[in-house]
Amino acid sequence: MASQEIEALTQALARLPGLGPRSARRAVLHLLKKREGALAPLLSALEAVDRRLATCSVCGNIDTSDPCSVCADPRRDQRSLCVVEEVADLWALERSRLFPGRYHVLGGRLSALDGVRPEDLGIARLVQRVEAGGIDEVVLAMNATLEGQTTAHYIAERIEQFPVRLTQLAHGLPVGGELDYLDEGTLAQAMRARRPVA
Amino acid sequence: MASQEIEALTQALARLPGLGPRSARRAVLHLLKKREGALAPLLSALEAVDRRLATCSVCGNIDTSDPCSVCADPRRDQRSLCVVEEVADLWALERSRLFPGRYHVLGGRLSALDGVRPEDLGIARLVQRVEAGGIDEVVLAMNATLEGQTTAHYIAERIEQFPVRLTQLAHGLPVGGELDYLDEGTLAQAMRARRPVA
Ligand SMILES: [Zn+2]
Ligand SMILES: [Zn+2]
Repeated sequence: MASQEIEALTQALARLPGLGPRSARRAVLHLLKKREGALAPLLSALEAVDRRLATCSVCGNIDTSDPCSVCADPRRDQRSLCVVEEVADLWALERSRLFPGRYHVLGGRLSALDGVRPEDLGIARLVQRVEAGGIDEVVLAMNATLEGQTTAHYIAERIEQFPVRLTQLAHGLPVGGELDYLDEGTLAQAMRARRPVA
Repeated sequence: MASQEIEALTQALARLPGLGPRSARRAVLHLLKKREGALAPLLSALEAVDRRLATCSVCGNIDTSDPCSVCADPRRDQRSLCVVEEVADLWALERSRLFPGRYHVLGGRLSALDGVRPEDLGIARLVQRVEAGGIDEVVLAMNATLEGQTTAHYIAERIEQFPVRLTQLAHGLPVGGELDYLDEGTLAQAMRARRPVA
């Protein structure tokens, strides 16, 4: 029915999380009908991001600059470091505006099932950052899942040798809950009530 | 939190129908993490569509060529014309693969409430197409809404002077139902049972 180009656009959109074939078709139609108001801004935004996309060499965040906008911000508290599993978690915490420090993205969580070992995650680099000094507090903000908590426990053991306060998010988090899906209120409560790792 | 470019991309996606701020953020993160697999294909598909986007001067379809791929297809039955309110309806009918002819997109429906008059729609051009001859059947495929049926009635009056068979979709359509939201089965039934306008 539609041309090859329109079909390709529909399929590219349909593969995004949260969109299916039906919503992708509606989105495409919207883009085609609103060329100036919708297609042009989306196209130029994609081009701008594509041109400058970078993984932060300091924290592992994905941004359009390296260091990322968090690491490059002089107002951020350099003495406080929050460790997260994924970039999505960093973004979720940033939306809550509760954490004034910087981040460390592990890139996953330890998993016997999926064969993810400590050396597959950014744990050695985390230890280096802590060892380099200048950090007072490390907040372990893993998901409240078995694998997340296993990862937090492992990191705690690797870091307790250094003179930093080690804390973790309060477990007001629903069991099995993933940070990125939580509402900001729950996240805020968990961050405020963070406590030292026992 | 995120850079200006990433924020702009998130907002451009969030304005698409079916996406909100939350799903747009997840989509952006997916694009950033899968640069080759997701961002690049979406970007090049958008560029290709943007480069060639056109409104068909024959039927009003939106496509990447003019005449559109339906009008330009020599296998389509030129003697059968299906009149729809919107491009979305044309696309919905095409997905059902039930109509072998060509289309005429009105660009809306008559509405006293919204101040849409016959001259605001592609009705004069429809009459011209029918008057030009070579058409045996005109299928009125308006939505089963009050405004859709008012529009169909108006068009029937304008066309009944010409030697064409005038039909409309069977009213197995749910009352108030809009074509573009119907499942293909319902649409198929309505198309197969189309009947002459009384
Ligand atoms: Zn960074
Ligand atoms: Zn056409």
